[in-house]
Amino acid sequence: MTERAHAELDGLALGIDLGASKIELGLVDGTGRIGERNRLDTDPDPERALSAVVEAAHHLLDRARRDGAKVTAAGAGAAGQVDSEGGILRTSPNLERWTDVPIARRLADALDLPVTITNDLNAITLAEYAHGAGRGLERGDGDLVVLYVGTGVGGGVISDGRLLEGAHGYAGELGHTALVAGGRPCSCRSSGCLEAYVSGWAIAVRAREAVGDDPEAGEILVQKAGGRDRITAATVARVAAAGDPLARRLVEETGRLLGAGLVSVIHVFNPRKLVLGGGVIDGIPDLVPAAAEVVRERAMAVFLEDLEIVPATLGEDAGVIGAARLGRLHAAERSRG
Amino acid sequence: MTERAHAELDGLALGIDLGASKIELGLVDGTGRIGERNRLDTDPDPERALSAVVEAAHHLLDRARRDGAKVTAAGAGAAGQVDSEGGILRTSPNLERWTDVPIARRLADALDLPVTITNDLNAITLAEYAHGAGRGLERGDGDLVVLYVGTGVGGGVISDGRLLEGAHGYAGELGHTALVAGGRPCSCRSSGCLEAYVSGWAIAVRAREAVGDDPEAGEILVQKAGGRDRITAATVARVAAAGDPLARRLVEETGRLLGAGLVSVIHVFNPRKLVLGGGVIDGIPDLVPAAAEVVRERAMAVFLEDLEIVPATLGEDAGVIGAARLGRLHAAERSRG
Repeated sequence: MTERAHAELDGLALGIDLGASKIELGLVDGTGRIGERNRLDTDPDPERALSAVVEAAHHLLDRARRDGAKVTAAGAGAAGQVDSEGGILRTSPNLERWTDVPIARRLADALDLPVTITNDLNAITLAEYAHGAGRGLERGDGDLVVLYVGTGVGGGVISDGRLLEGAHGYAGELGHTALVAGGRPCSCRSSGCLEAYVSGWAIAVRAREAVGDDPEAGEILVQKAGGRDRITAATVARVAAAGDPLARRLVEETGRLLGAGLVSVIHVFNPRKLVLGGGVIDGIPDLVPAAAEVVRERAMAVFLEDLEIVPATLGEDAGVIGAARLGRLHAAERSRG
Repeated sequence: MTERAHAELDGLALGIDLGASKIELGLVDGTGRIGERNRLDTDPDPERALSAVVEAAHHLLDRARRDGAKVTAAGAGAAGQVDSEGGILRTSPNLERWTDVPIARRLADALDLPVTITNDLNAITLAEYAHGAGRGLERGDGDLVVLYVGTGVGGGVISDGRLLEGAHGYAGELGHTALVAGGRPCSCRSSGCLEAYVSGWAIAVRAREAVGDDPEAGEILVQKAGGRDRITAATVARVAAAGDPLARRLVEETGRLLGAGLVSVIHVFNPRKLVLGGGVIDGIPDLVPAAAEVVRERAMAVFLEDLEIVPATLGEDAGVIGAARLGRLHAAERSRG
């Protein structure tokens, strides 16, 4: 799917952001604006969850029809490994019963719309590329990477205007690339991944360890969190912002580690824009310039000439906007044969 | 450039493999077979080197014309960072005077042929994809990664049938991605890169250090190399094959480190085939199964379902074959408008 086959389709597209804790639905126009929207808690049982999605979607579609608007396609982004061609969520790290769920077919049958699904980060990447931080790239053939640092770390890649999907749609797992091979255990089967150092859960683990190593230096962190085991990345962010030396050291380390990860991403993809988003970035915006400094010191010079490292701009709406865009693009491609 | 716009052009294409120590030229047919060929030493002065290339190329072209063959295009792969759109070799790690050399224009003017240039590993990747280890992938939309472990470490990526180039053509520097952030100094501006652990030069550095740490265990290595500072990756390979415990340990470590690097590549690209080539792989073929074992243990399961990790098959001819193919593909695209 190329962005050149862009979204000339009129009308609205339904975007669905299937997260581990909540599901967002929205009707999105061709400019990336969300109109009517809806939010559900994610049921651990996929069949029950999809029934609720269908109901919520019908609600939105009925309202659109009453208003005389045409909804032409739907897209969904799901947290996990998505077989994009088959429309199947293969596995989801935080939803163990969501294994081999044929989401696209299930929704297409129930909604009578063409439905395309992808990984949640791919949806976010499409949204930031077309309507967010990526705007201004050469139309249709830009090179952009999105790295999301939240509870976990995920990524998405636009190469020459196209979403990088790999053989089955699983590509772009930038959080599960080596940062320190043989290092900290990761949430995946490996160790030493970027996620095991800079994600929200990893910052919490590193902070708890640091406090254990030096309880005196960690006093404020423990106090503000209400206990050592309750320290989160948000505690670290808050306490660092107030000037606590240990928390600041953790943030500085995180910036350097993230920067080392970005150097890899840049050498692999030679992007024009590298977009950083997610809860940890939003909570500790200083990480963006700190990581960018490491990149300027460490990446090969030719890669830096017109590279921009920028924060994401669409926030939590990106998933719905990008899922809708994906649905729209695929429907447009299909209608052209 | 898609592989779908495949090489229907009849006739021959000139392929040029511009390496740091030698330059290979060959006339290649549409099936990837090299006919007439030629080899030069690489002159450190780019102008003198390109004059020699032009002379050698004219020699090949004249012979082809006398035989009634038509040469329709030329391509070159150069060791370094290549601005593919501008046809310029920007920098080359081992040829310091080869900076901002407009190779494509210089050759096109002198040879009166359309000339396209790319990075040497991209050329190798195109060759292995179309005519080597990648054969058998779905025609035109395969996902394949080539990782070359030689003196340095380089890579090339075919995503959905297209060469991954990035914004300017510099993409695919898989050797300069983090393996152990903050670790061993690399040949680039960074440290801890994959190249700093598994390349030929890095194996030599690691072996010399290991011998320094334990001279007794290193006795055979030193003896076979003719001195500690003369130990190379080839010495390690030879002595390990003869059963020396220290050399074997170095090879085993290299396999594990390479495997950790492959896990990253697999999580990023979700390839169907991962092709390993280069002098170190050729010299220590056991590295392929050793690294593949790490992949089976560490990569996420869905990525492994139909992944094949295979050795490259075209050897040292790959650069010429791929460069010719690139020239052919671009000329075919251009002639279509």
